[in-house]
Amino acid sequence: MGESMQGLKRSHRCTELSMENIDQKVLVMGWVQKRRDLGGVIFLDLRDRSGVLQVVIDTSTIGADLFKKAEKIRSEFVVAIEGVVEKRSDETINKNIATGEIEIRANDLRLLSEAETPPFQIEENSNVKEELRLKYRYLDLRRPDLQRNLIMRNAVSILTREFLNQEGFLEIETPMLTKSTPEGARDYLVPSRVHPGNFYALPQSPQIFKQLLMLSGYDRYYQIVKCFRDEDLRADRQPEFTQIDMELSFVDVDDVIEINEKLLQKMFKEVLNVDITLPIERLTYEDAMNRFGSDKPDTRFGFELVDLTEVLKDCEFKVFKSAIESGGSVRAINAKGCGDFPRRTIDALGEYAMTFGAKGMAWIVINEDGSYKSVITKFLKDEEIQNIVKSVDGQPGDLILFAADKNDIVYDVLGNLRLEIARRLEILNKDEFKFVWVTEFPLLEWAPEQKRYVAKHHPFTMPMEEDLHLLETDPGKVRAKAYDIVLNGTEIGGGSIRIYQKDVQEKMFECLGFTKEEAYERFGFLLNAFKYGVPPHGGLAYGLDRILMLMTGSDSIRDVIAFPKIKDASCPMTEAPGTVEGKQLEELSLKIDMIEID
Amino acid sequence: MGESMQGLKRSHRCTELSMENIDQKVLVMGWVQKRRDLGGVIFLDLRDRSGVLQVVIDTSTIGADLFKKAEKIRSEFVVAIEGVVEKRSDETINKNIATGEIEIRANDLRLLSEAETPPFQIEENSNVKEELRLKYRYLDLRRPDLQRNLIMRNAVSILTREFLNQEGFLEIETPMLTKSTPEGARDYLVPSRVHPGNFYALPQSPQIFKQLLMLSGYDRYYQIVKCFRDEDLRADRQPEFTQIDMELSFVDVDDVIEINEKLLQKMFKEVLNVDITLPIERLTYEDAMNRFGSDKPDTRFGFELVDLTEVLKDCEFKVFKSAIESGGSVRAINAKGCGDFPRRTIDALGEYAMTFGAKGMAWIVINEDGSYKSVITKFLKDEEIQNIVKSVDGQPGDLILFAADKNDIVYDVLGNLRLEIARRLEILNKDEFKFVWVTEFPLLEWAPEQKRYVAKHHPFTMPMEEDLHLLETDPGKVRAKAYDIVLNGTEIGGGSIRIYQKDVQEKMFECLGFTKEEAYERFGFLLNAFKYGVPPHGGLAYGLDRILMLMTGSDSIRDVIAFPKIKDASCPMTEAPGTVEGKQLEELSLKIDMIEID
Repeated sequence: MGESMQGLKRSHRCTELSMENIDQKVLVMGWVQKRRDLGGVIFLDLRDRSGVLQVVIDTSTIGADLFKKAEKIRSEFVVAIEGVVEKRSDETINKNIATGEIEIRANDLRLLSEAETPPFQIEENSNVKEELRLKYRYLDLRRPDLQRNLIMRNAVSILTREFLNQEGFLEIETPMLTKSTPEGARDYLVPSRVHPGNFYALPQSPQIFKQLLMLSGYDRYYQIVKCFRDEDLRADRQPEFTQIDMELSFVDVDDVIEINEKLLQKMFKEVLNVDITLPIERLTYEDAMNRFGSDKPDTRFGFELVDLTEVLKDCEFKVFKSAIESGGSVRAINAKGCGDFPRRTIDALGEYAMTFGAKGMAWIVINEDGSYKSVITKFLKDEEIQNIVKSVDGQPGDLILFAADKNDIVYDVLGNLRLEIARRLEILNKDEFKFVWVTEFPLLEWAPEQKRYVAKHHPFTMPMEEDLHLLETDPGKVRAKAYDIVLNGTEIGGGSIRIYQKDVQEKMFECLGFTKEEAYERFGFLLNAFKYGVPPHGGLAYGLDRILMLMTGSDSIRDVIAFPKIKDASCPMTEAPGTVEGKQLEELSLKIDMIEID
Repeated sequence: MGESMQGLKRSHRCTELSMENIDQKVLVMGWVQKRRDLGGVIFLDLRDRSGVLQVVIDTSTIGADLFKKAEKIRSEFVVAIEGVVEKRSDETINKNIATGEIEIRANDLRLLSEAETPPFQIEENSNVKEELRLKYRYLDLRRPDLQRNLIMRNAVSILTREFLNQEGFLEIETPMLTKSTPEGARDYLVPSRVHPGNFYALPQSPQIFKQLLMLSGYDRYYQIVKCFRDEDLRADRQPEFTQIDMELSFVDVDDVIEINEKLLQKMFKEVLNVDITLPIERLTYEDAMNRFGSDKPDTRFGFELVDLTEVLKDCEFKVFKSAIESGGSVRAINAKGCGDFPRRTIDALGEYAMTFGAKGMAWIVINEDGSYKSVITKFLKDEEIQNIVKSVDGQPGDLILFAADKNDIVYDVLGNLRLEIARRLEILNKDEFKFVWVTEFPLLEWAPEQKRYVAKHHPFTMPMEEDLHLLETDPGKVRAKAYDIVLNGTEIGGGSIRIYQKDVQEKMFECLGFTKEEAYERFGFLLNAFKYGVPPHGGLAYGLDRILMLMTGSDSIRDVIAFPKIKDASCPMTEAPGTVEGKQLEELSLKIDMIEID
């Protein structure tokens, strides 16, 4: 069941060997990727983290006993091979692998570990169902593509730390067992044994702690740190995720953006050899919505939104007219060159639009002869049609798609339509990296359910100086010193300048509908801390998993996390979460209280 | 309540300025450490993370309005000062600070943040009660000694990563939300909302995951990672603590030790300029117990244990005789030169010994004239006394202390006595760093309560090859390929070579009293994983907090953790753990079940 390691010392990893080692005696260890038995000669492809190496086990040189042992070898056995590096004969040279010119002629071997046939083949880009892959994650992780992903993840962490250390940041660890924060997503709770009925919360982010560190004079903080949110999972969400979190003192928006652009530039250059031209484009939230219908615009392609409200203000087409009259808008995108989409594709786009709240989707195709194909043109005056076409720069062969509704819905519908069309056209190139900063976010967002404003970023975000006066009169209009960094339509990071004045912070809590007492109950230690001299400060946090997903071109963040969880927040491999013993709950003064369904 | 930062850009940190900047216009920001008003001239000591800088605000150069503003400044105000670097007049040069030759003559200033008088002075080595310090941790963290500690902590992390990256290790993140492990300390549990009645556990260590990574071919893994244990706290324990965790494939004990010695050497050289001579001394567990009565011996001083059992085997002194007859031992330490301890000190040592289970403490003082002071000599034959004195190398002026009992107690009593004496003599030099490896630990430990063996390290530890045959016949005698690294009497790290053979692992579980079914229920995925080719592997984990405690000479690990918890596992600053809303518990299908006391 496994021979001893005793006395063995590996001399090289598989791909550390090359023509320079010819005739050297070496000792290599690894997994058997493949085994070919040519009668009297066995060839092994030996695999370790570095790659693959060919081993020749020849009965004429290794002796009968060892050869007999070698005959037992199957795929995924772990073996130690002592042998001599030889040049392969010309006709057997394999240019596809790094060690393709050489092979090891074995003169001793140990079977360190046997292996059953794995439930799936260990190979790149396997088509195995993810469920099975995740159950046998330890085998899945042997696949070269996953290994590359985790190696790249490590490279990104190394570069990030290197850069931030050089820039005078200190990595400081903040607590994992902390206090439940009432604003934000749902917390994961940890019952306290010593304080029955009390709970810690796992951090959604180190937000408050990093602000306290600024207040304590640490000047520049960062941390690559696990954060937790008990939310229903989507493709790019995990219950635990990793942030590159940072905070800087004595800075304003431009300072934070500037240093982060340098970080991103270094990261993408050194890991992917991709050049990012600085400065990265900036869009205000308002512009992002108006042009792309999204606060995380994918700027790899056009199809920008065009506001037709002015052009159509006297329009009699009922759908457009009622949208405009009720304070909404009519906007369109010009899907350039998509005039040849078959009718069923356009219908499918219409149905897609409706999943975002559209009541329908008007469209116009400009035929090659300049005429229009459309069911709405008959409701429009010629001048209106001409103005539309002019506004969207319509050319023969174009497809114009409309949304007319409340602005929120119009943005959402057209923002998603442009993405959907790009996907259908397969013009989204994973090797193209388009960054954009989105700035000047609204400070507050009206939460109709709670009938109050909630913080768009979080309650410590600084309003823009020029909007401060609106805090009392028109809080919904106040813009924040908040910024997101968006890559190819994915928000990979975001942050803000923080409030450092106790009076502004108190006013902010007021806007959020907290009485002074409530504010103190929830954030008391922070407000107290603010009494003792606070530097202006701000920061940013990246989602490391998302960055890696984009860098590796993966479809899921699960492919850049060693041991991820699936949709129901469980781990198919360890079967976490699991039941615990009654004694454990007793110690925590807890009882399971299932709702019985009759 | 705080002027705006707008338009300001810091040009230097305080101590980045020197004589080289004379006549330059600069903009510095920081906290006011001290303010002296000399009538028409105000001197500020401005503090930032880098240190302190003197600022002169002179009514004759700054103008009346700004001077008026300056008069409001108090300690801990945060200010921005624009001014010119000037050489101080010779008589005001301060050689105690880096910037002592210069000062900034202010020509503009902003009060970025006001400050109330802090509840305690921000200064080095403050005598403030720890409770108050921890409540106001954000102020406590302004103290230069704590800042130095956290900066050193960061330096150690940087060097560790640098070294391990160079050595081909990959940092790979393992999950925080995982499965409760039945062996080991008490887990922190995290209730699952999606799976009512089920719980995640926070990891006590990434043990199983790192072994799986080896099995997946990652070859060398490390992680600086938070771990959790819900145990009652001691001075060097925290509910969450940080490990430098590593695992290597295709290695045996010497390989792990060798690479870690290099790491420690680099760490102590580059951070503290302390040279560690390699190889570090190694002691087997048996030798460590016999010589120091401890498996984490402080080897900065002698007072080693001497076994007198053979010498006293015919002794008629009841205490000694009964210890020997019941299979225990009589041992002593010679507290060299402590013969002049007053009687009350010796009595105090006796009482101290009894807290470790001794029924009393026999002792002999060798007087300067060679006679003895002792209450036990009268029970001993002259020859026995002479043999004792010879065995412990007794000289006039020495104090010999005895323990006679079961071996466990004898070790514990004398091991602690030698430490206590060293503390009383104040010979424990914090600037001396004595490392020792303790090896060949017992694989198993008898747990009388559970009436079974438990793993001394953990159930995946490899037995020494030469003891494998004892697994079935005499498991208590089996030594493990386990090792601890001990610094000045504190275990700072430990690890082992792991079992990589399924059959040995199953036998190990058998020794621990698990049926095959139980073993599979608890560690099924690991045992399954072992079917598919396992490389021999082993690793080690350091307690980073403990290393830093020793490196900084702190008395508590709380002084090297930014936001630590106190003895009852609570945080005086955030008041975590706290109560949560009923709705939160409902979502988790939990009920608080307090035991009512009538």
